[in-house]
Amino acid sequence: MSEPLRVLGIDPGSRLTGFGVLDFNGDKATYIASGGINCANGEFADRLKIIFRSVSEIVAEYRPSVVAIESVFVNRSAGSALKLGHARSAAICATFSFDVTVVEYSPREIKQAIVGSGAATKEQIQHMVKSLLSLGGEPSPDAADALAAAICYGHQRRMKNRLSDRQLLARRR
Amino acid sequence: MSEPLRVLGIDPGSRLTGFGVLDFNGDKATYIASGGINCANGEFADRLKIIFRSVSEIVAEYRPSVVAIESVFVNRSAGSALKLGHARSAAICATFSFDVTVVEYSPREIKQAIVGSGAATKEQIQHMVKSLLSLGGEPSPDAADALAAAICYGHQRRMKNRLSDRQLLARRR
Repeated sequence: MSEPLRVLGIDPGSRLTGFGVLDFNGDKATYIASGGINCANGEFADRLKIIFRSVSEIVAEYRPSVVAIESVFVNRSAGSALKLGHARSAAICATFSFDVTVVEYSPREIKQAIVGSGAATKEQIQHMVKSLLSLGGEPSPDAADALAAAICYGHQRRMKNRLSDRQLLARRR
Repeated sequence: MSEPLRVLGIDPGSRLTGFGVLDFNGDKATYIASGGINCANGEFADRLKIIFRSVSEIVAEYRPSVVAIESVFVNRSAGSALKLGHARSAAICATFSFDVTVVEYSPREIKQAIVGSGAATKEQIQHMVKSLLSLGGEPSPDAADALAAAICYGHQRRMKNRLSDRQLLARRR
């Protein structure tokens, strides 16, 4: 049996950053951990430091091979885009000391992979993440979004593998 | 004689990030180094990695006590604010492994400190930085903006020291 592939999903935010860790073994996803990094208080540089250090610690502890992170939908004010950009970059920079691949998905891609619709609500994401991972309870919205980013990675990998299997089959015929 | 205080100024940008190192000895500023980090090409995450690693190397080499960084004037599109936020955060995160104080100045504060007017042009900044530091030639616009952030720190420190000297004098009377 091959080693499971470990994926860390991150839902970046300037006040709360969600994270979720999953192991993929073939098509099967196993829940490992999830939670939220609270960085709502203090000076802005200190809040970035909390995100940077917390994500570094999470990567050091769980050693994922892949980090899946939500990209930012730019339909917001320049001020909030600026803040979110800082928070998201701090989470990405925290992975640079480790041998991980960073992949980015739009909120729409993630929702599509989880609920089948790009217009899914937060509650639908929480509900589907609980169901897909057979969790005992619903994760918090931020943890659910982070787990959803990790599930989206697994989903896209499965699609790619099936596509290349089919191409292989087509070539053999 | 006391140890000079070393300040690293940073002018963050998503394509070019300027840096400048100065030593302050009392009121006197001595030029140590300056330059630009080119991160215009490649995937966005790779460009952040270039900023993060380059600023880490600069801090490791010059060991400043203070990092002075320009804050972002938010009169721009959400898309460009998002990119600039990422770049600026990567530069700030690169200082977190070192014992440095990060201070932020608005573009207006920096221009005011260098040229005496918050509406100074890039050329005026370059010219004044060359003159204030007695440089042989004009630094590039990005290096000049970074050196200007460092000069702004020195300027504000001088003002604070004089203010507290006066208060001390007033108390002694």
